[in-house]
Order: sequence, then structure tokens, then C-alpha cells
Amino acid sequence: MDEGLPPLEVAGRLDRLRVAVAGHADAIVISDLMSIRWCTGFTGSNALLVITNEDSTLITDGRYRVQAPDELAAARSNTMVEIAIQPIEAAARALGSVEIVALEADVLTWSEQRSWMKETDVELVPTQGLVRELRAVKDDAELARIERAAAIVDAALADREDLLVVGTTEREMAHALEQSMRARGATGPAYETIVAGGPNGALPHARPTDRPFSDGELVVIDAGSVVEGYRSDMTRTFVIGAAGDEACRIREIVTEAQAAGVAAVGPGVEAREIDQVCRSVIADAGYGDAFSHGTGHGVGLDIHELPAVHARSTAILQPGHVITVEPGIYIPALGGCRVEDLLVVTESGCRPLTNSPKLTQSPKPSR
Amino acid sequence: MDEGLPPLEVAGRLDRLRVAVAGHADAIVISDLMSIRWCTGFTGSNALLVITNEDSTLITDGRYRVQAPDELAAARSNTMVEIAIQPIEAAARALGSVEIVALEADVLTWSEQRSWMKETDVELVPTQGLVRELRAVKDDAELARIERAAAIVDAALADREDLLVVGTTEREMAHALEQSMRARGATGPAYETIVAGGPNGALPHARPTDRPFSDGELVVIDAGSVVEGYRSDMTRTFVIGAAGDEACRIREIVTEAQAAGVAAVGPGVEAREIDQVCRSVIADAGYGDAFSHGTGHGVGLDIHELPAVHARSTAILQPGHVITVEPGIYIPALGGCRVEDLLVVTESGCRPLTNSPKLTQSPKPSR
Repeated sequence: MDEGLPPLEVAGRLDRLRVAVAGHADAIVISDLMSIRWCTGFTGSNALLVITNEDSTLITDGRYRVQAPDELAAARSNTMVEIAIQPIEAAARALGSVEIVALEADVLTWSEQRSWMKETDVELVPTQGLVRELRAVKDDAELARIERAAAIVDAALADREDLLVVGTTEREMAHALEQSMRARGATGPAYETIVAGGPNGALPHARPTDRPFSDGELVVIDAGSVVEGYRSDMTRTFVIGAAGDEACRIREIVTEAQAAGVAAVGPGVEAREIDQVCRSVIADAGYGDAFSHGTGHGVGLDIHELPAVHARSTAILQPGHVITVEPGIYIPALGGCRVEDLLVVTESGCRPLTNSPKLTQSPKPSR
Repeated sequence: MDEGLPPLEVAGRLDRLRVAVAGHADAIVISDLMSIRWCTGFTGSNALLVITNEDSTLITDGRYRVQAPDELAAARSNTMVEIAIQPIEAAARALGSVEIVALEADVLTWSEQRSWMKETDVELVPTQGLVRELRAVKDDAELARIERAAAIVDAALADREDLLVVGTTEREMAHALEQSMRARGATGPAYETIVAGGPNGALPHARPTDRPFSDGELVVIDAGSVVEGYRSDMTRTFVIGAAGDEACRIREIVTEAQAAGVAAVGPGVEAREIDQVCRSVIADAGYGDAFSHGTGHGVGLDIHELPAVHARSTAILQPGHVITVEPGIYIPALGGCRVEDLLVVTESGCRPLTNSPKLTQSPKPSR
């Protein structure tokens, strides 16, 4: 464990999950690996987790014979470990006399559901999001990790500010940032780092290319890091040299929309309201059609978690939710602009976890 | 596209898929993103691909309005693109009068299957692996990318051989390798690079830690890179300084088992036979229980593809299959040894794509 981070304690989470399951079934079998990690501390790539009212069993394969018990002990889990070649058969044994079992319908494949039907006698109940709803609210140990992951990216961006000049390629910038994140203690990037200059910025999910930055263009940098499995997410849009009028204008509009969205975040607020606030600033400025994605999402062990922050979201924000607010404007041929912060909802409003400055210029005209 | 790589051409792949689907249904809807990439060239994170006997339609969201047509054109795909908010509804429209539709039962979630039942009138047929079976056989353009990804890791390992000394930490080595892969043109690592020294090597899927290498121990390095989406996979086990008797012995046994496995690879061979060959060398040497995983797997756009190479595999090797052969011995407290090559099955046998030397010593006693 990293120095200075409070220990993760997973044991209490299972009892909260049992309460959530009680209305649906007598037990639940978890197949989502991130949810299994959240419930037990296990980080392997193959597992089922059986949770009955009496106990819990992690079923995995021979590769994890040593790692699984070690990781569960480190997370203070009291789940048992079973190594098995036929996981559904092993899960059915661990369920004992349980008759009605909840399965994660949005994670389990149709094939797996068919195998459960064929290989067991239990009644299967499709559930969705029971663990993900609980995971959305972060405890202090989780927040400490997300906050550190965010601070690492703030620092990495400051480290490599010198590269925000004419001639640097997108790929050079992305690799330099990822290297700096690692040097500062991150396991790695939280997702494929986006560095998109000029016209490439018009693709919200552009991949870094060998195209060099040139004078007057916007560069979108979307970067996150991972600390003990927990992720961060931030976007800034920089100007290389002196930007043209439209580029300056969309940057001001997006920055204003983002600030308005952040100001609206607080406990009890409907998530779709945040989307609405950002969207109306951009629409009022005449760029409504150019904001082609939702405003944000939760972040944690997964880079996209609950709560969703878009026009169709039904989520109500609660203290402990960690969300992004990331409006953007994308104009084919010209480029794009997106500004994104990661925030934790507090009792009184919200607190930003990403703190890199906005609306800065590139440091020097060229290199 | 990288210099020197032949262009990818995806158009012919859909007709081969139509032949495979014909026995099951009148059309297929693909949800596996890697299979969608293989069929169309699209690399985005959200899509459905509808393939009827007449045409094909990629359904994705507004983020990919520009990227999707660009990528399809680059891969010479003749699939149409549709941007939609309700993908199943859009897929049903694209299916037109088709009545029986194959869905990928091992990819689609149970929830998605339930939505198809609710939102459409078509008869749903669960299929498994239709695209993955086709993807297992690589064409020349795909092989060129996998081969380059493998050569990059060979070179990266040679670049950073100087770090194979007492005092280097696992994490330093892993980051140095990944940096070198990128400098040599890889998009990134094909999976989380494994560098596992001493006792950590006893975990087949260990993650790099801050533990420094010490004299006499084995270090397992399992690394792959990505070139235009195609992956490579290789493992070597090094000795730091002078290893003890048991460490030397398990290294020789594994190297022998791996060579025997490679020698058995060829067209028409049952994949499980390769597993059997490796396993019997290790069992004969008295370490049967210490080889706790399957012998190998296919590699391509995904790091684990068909054909499977383990005791229960029913695959028959064919020219164009790209597989790993990677037996290992894992001994708690002492450590582990695994040797892995990536091979392409040819008309007459196989050709290794990974070429780093085996059974080398560390270059110097310390740094």
C-alpha cells in the first residue's frame, strides 16, 4: 500500500449489499470484476463472488491460488476463497440450499445465463446496478486514492507544460504525461490519454497521432491516472501561440459552461440538471449542436461509473458521489474544446479533485 | 497507417461471416467491439453492427459522427454508418424484414437479450464464436502488424537488458520496457507488463512492485505491445547473478517443455496435444502440480483469442493461427519460471514471431 493512504476495508460493504439484495432474492452472485474487487479486494481477471446471508465465497482459478487469499487479507475481507475449474458448479455448491438467486443481468452474458439455467436448479432473478449503486458513493479511503490520482495528473501536466509549443506531436505529449504520472506514483493512465490538436480535436475521443502542434490551434488534453485501482479524469484545452477569434470564443463559452455546471453540483440535485445548465450556456451562445455528448459520469474503480450526468439520467447527487463535469464544443476542420473537472459531492456542495488552471496560454511561442 | 505495413482490407470478411451465419439465421447483429473492428475498421467504444445478406450497418453514437466514416473508409469497408440514441431500435430498422437474427450469446448481456425480446419482433438465435472463429485465422496484413508488435518487444527487451541487475525494481523494469516499446512505434503495452522477481514470480499474473531484484533470483518478464490494434505476447525468465540449483533446474525444465511444445505445433494438430506435450515434460521432471495454467491461447486484436491451447481445447491448428506456447513452473516462496513464444502456424509447421534469446544470464553481477 502507498504511504499516507488510509487502508481499504471491504468487509462492511457486503452487509450493505445484502440489504439491497433482500428485496429481490435470497443471495447474489457477482460477476463484474470491478464489483468483485470492491467487495473483496481481489484484482484477478477471472472470478465469481457468491454472497448469501450467512457467508461469501470467491471462486477463481489456479492462477490466483496465492494471490487471492493475499489480496483478500490485505483488504480485511472475510470472504472464503475456492479454486475451481467449473465456476457455475462451484457457485451452486456455495449457494447451498438457497432457492432464489440474483444475477447481474447487465454483466452476465446471455450464454452464461443459459448455462446457469442448464446447470443449476435455482430460480434466477435479473438485477441491475445493485453493486454499482453502492459503489457510486465513495468512502474516505476510496476518495483518498481518487484524490491522489487526480493530483498526480495536475502535477504531470505542470511538469510537461514546456511541451505545449509549436512542433510537439500529440504522441510525444501523451507519452510524456504518462511517464510523468508513473514517475509520480501512478500505476499508469486511467484510460488512453487524449492529446488532440487542431482539427483532431473535433473528435471527442481522438487518439494521439504524430501530428505536430501548430501556431494558433487548440489542443485538447484529456488525462487520468490510476492509484491502487482508483481512477481520475480531467480535460484542459490549451491554445498554442495566439488563437483565432472563433477558437478563443469557443474556449470562453466552454469554460463558462463548465463553471456553471460545477456551480450547480450539490447533494439532492438531479444529475440531469447539471447537464441542462452546461447545455443551455452553450446553446445560448449558438453552439448547441456542437456539444455532442453527455456532460459527465461517475468515476472510481471504473472510469465510467454511476451516477450518469446526462439529459436522460435519473440520478440524484449524494455526498460521496465522484463525478466529472465536462462540456465541449466540436467543430469539424476547426477543432474542439473541452474542459473537465473531477468533483466530489459534499454535504454543502462539491469539492474539485482536479485543480490545473484553466484558460492558460502556452508558455512560449515556439520551441 | 505505419510505414511499411500492408493496408488492412475488411470488405471480404463480411462475406465469409455471412456463410458462417447462414446455417443459424438470416442476419447477425455483432456487439463485440473487437469483432466490429475486425469487420469494419471502427475502433470506437460503442457500436452494434447489423449484417444482412444485402448490406451492413454500423450503429454508434454522436461522439463518432466523424471518426466512424473516416475509419471505415481507411479500412475499405462498404458498411453504412448510422448515428442513433436507441441502438436496438436502430438495429431493428436496419434489419428490415429479416425474421431470424443471430446474436452473440457470449458477448450480449442477459439484459440486452431481454431488451431485444421486449423491443423487437424478431426471433433471436444464440450463437457463439462465429466471428471469433474467423478472426483466429490471420491474413497477411494482420500478421504484419502482430509481427511488428512482437519485434518491438524483442528490441525493447534488448534495449533494457542493462536493467537486469541487482537493485532494479520490478516497476522500473516494466516502465522502461513500456517506454522503449513506445519509442519504437508501439501504441502501448498489449496488457499490463509483468515483471516478477523472486517469490513474486510464483504468481503467474503478478503486478510489478517496488521490490528490487536480488542476487540469485529468477525474474519473469511477460510483455507485449500493440501496433494498429494488433497485439503480441512473450515471456522470458532471467537469472540475476548466479541462481541456486532448484532455480536453474526449473528454468531448464520449462525451457525444454516449451521447446517440445513449439516443435509439436503445425497444421492439423489438435491444440490440446500441444498442452499435453508441455505438461508431460514438466510432469516427468516431478513438477506437474506446479504448472497451474493452460499452455497458450490465440492472439490478435484481443490478447486472448481463439484457438485455446489447453487440455480441454477442441481446436485443430490451421495455417494463419497465431498462438502462444507458454508453460511455467510456480513454487511458492521460491518463485516462478515461464517461457513463452508467439507463433504463427504455417503450411509446414510454425514460425516464431518472438525471437528474444532464452536461457541468457543477466549481463553484469550488479549495478
